[in-house]
Amino acid sequence: MTSDTGDRLILLTNDDGLYATGLRTLLEVMEEYGKVVLVSTVESMSGMSQALTVKTPLRIRLVDETDRHRIYACNGTPADGVKLAVNQLLDRQPDWVVSGVNHGANASVSVLYSGTMAAAIEGCLYGINSVGFSLNSFSRSADFTVCKKYIRIVMDRVISEPLPAGVCLNVNMPAVAESEIRGIMVCRQAKGNWKEEFEKRKDPMGKTYYWLTGLFNNHEPEATDTDEWALANNFVSVVPVTIDMTAYGYIDKLKERFANDPNGKI
Amino acid sequence: MTSDTGDRLILLTNDDGLYATGLRTLLEVMEEYGKVVLVSTVESMSGMSQALTVKTPLRIRLVDETDRHRIYACNGTPADGVKLAVNQLLDRQPDWVVSGVNHGANASVSVLYSGTMAAAIEGCLYGINSVGFSLNSFSRSADFTVCKKYIRIVMDRVISEPLPAGVCLNVNMPAVAESEIRGIMVCRQAKGNWKEEFEKRKDPMGKTYYWLTGLFNNHEPEATDTDEWALANNFVSVVPVTIDMTAYGYIDKLKERFANDPNGKI
Repeated sequence: MTSDTGDRLILLTNDDGLYATGLRTLLEVMEEYGKVVLVSTVESMSGMSQALTVKTPLRIRLVDETDRHRIYACNGTPADGVKLAVNQLLDRQPDWVVSGVNHGANASVSVLYSGTMAAAIEGCLYGINSVGFSLNSFSRSADFTVCKKYIRIVMDRVISEPLPAGVCLNVNMPAVAESEIRGIMVCRQAKGNWKEEFEKRKDPMGKTYYWLTGLFNNHEPEATDTDEWALANNFVSVVPVTIDMTAYGYIDKLKERFANDPNGKI
Repeated sequence: MTSDTGDRLILLTNDDGLYATGLRTLLEVMEEYGKVVLVSTVESMSGMSQALTVKTPLRIRLVDETDRHRIYACNGTPADGVKLAVNQLLDRQPDWVVSGVNHGANASVSVLYSGTMAAAIEGCLYGINSVGFSLNSFSRSADFTVCKKYIRIVMDRVISEPLPAGVCLNVNMPAVAESEIRGIMVCRQAKGNWKEEFEKRKDPMGKTYYWLTGLFNNHEPEATDTDEWALANNFVSVVPVTIDMTAYGYIDKLKERFANDPNGKI
């Protein structure tokens, strides 16, 4: 889509730093869809989840401007950056919040830790159409070229009609050659967790410290409708993500557990 | 419940600092239920969500030990603390992860930003029964005495039978006198968002900076089955929280939007 961008306003962000290849790749594609305002920390700030900066002041400054984009550096988290842009920087609410392309996948439970997805969720909380893109590679030499094609396919499919209230998209792309990608798969978040999470070391004073590390453990490798399966089988995964974390399926049972309590309403 | 605690192991944490009244209140009650290992930052670290520390080393040290508890200070986020305890500190997986009592409510979408709930969610990711408690007051002089009664009621109701996989509890308590509390209400996360989120200031050099602030905006004040309604009407709210953020209700519609795409599997 290179025409009819109208006056569409896109807020772009991520957590790998202002000069990350993934972010710059997404900027290039998003300029085809509208006027882009990019807000990012200068350096990378991974694993920040939906964290907010409450104890230190936030600052934001314009670092680049063309007729297609404005780029701002912000000292906050990805969620802070979206909040600052929507509340203070922009004259009007953006039409889209787009985050990524992250260096590293955000499939399965990684959605809970991801700054990339936190930015999309933050947009969603404001009622803005939001999507996060990630590439399944932490390699510095990862090739983001293939991503462009799939970012365009996803955006072309969703840009014409708003997403439902409270729902944003989590898109993960396999890091393989274009010829190996088998297509796009709408799927659900795989069940899994992290294990072997720390490397224990001694500092020069002999005191113990730990580095966070860890391996992902897919609890349902046989299930073929999950984002982990999609990535492992060279599909681009698209998971609709809700901001409502209520476990609706357990409400009735939980009411039973609180039943007949003199202090309980239920 | 003061008997039959067996060798139950409880991991306790929160984000208001090691000496916060809410945390100490919860410690006192939890000692009635088992052996408690408490892990917390020394100072408060609010709004960290599920953030993880990936760029700096983590450290943890024993600061107090009795026959009923061990207390550790950790320099990481609430989620880091749970991870370190489960992976490195404890000989076996705890039976419960209990977080709080937070100074300030974590109802509605605050669950997404909350370090208190992140700790509970982290426990849930390990397959451990987990619950977060919060008091609806930021006041330094908030009275946590009333909380004890309701923490006991909640624990007594849930401790005998495991929570379902992938589900933890978000308990919020109104900050009113005991006589005014109307009971416990199992409910859902209210729809809402934050507005007027920043205070803009100039530093002594004339440069602009921002403090995060904000007012909560309840999108459905009339709904009587939400945590916000419960708190506003002096009920203790109990919301079952899922770690699966998939918007299942939108999967079929999203598949339709990607249908007939030569690159799509669907």
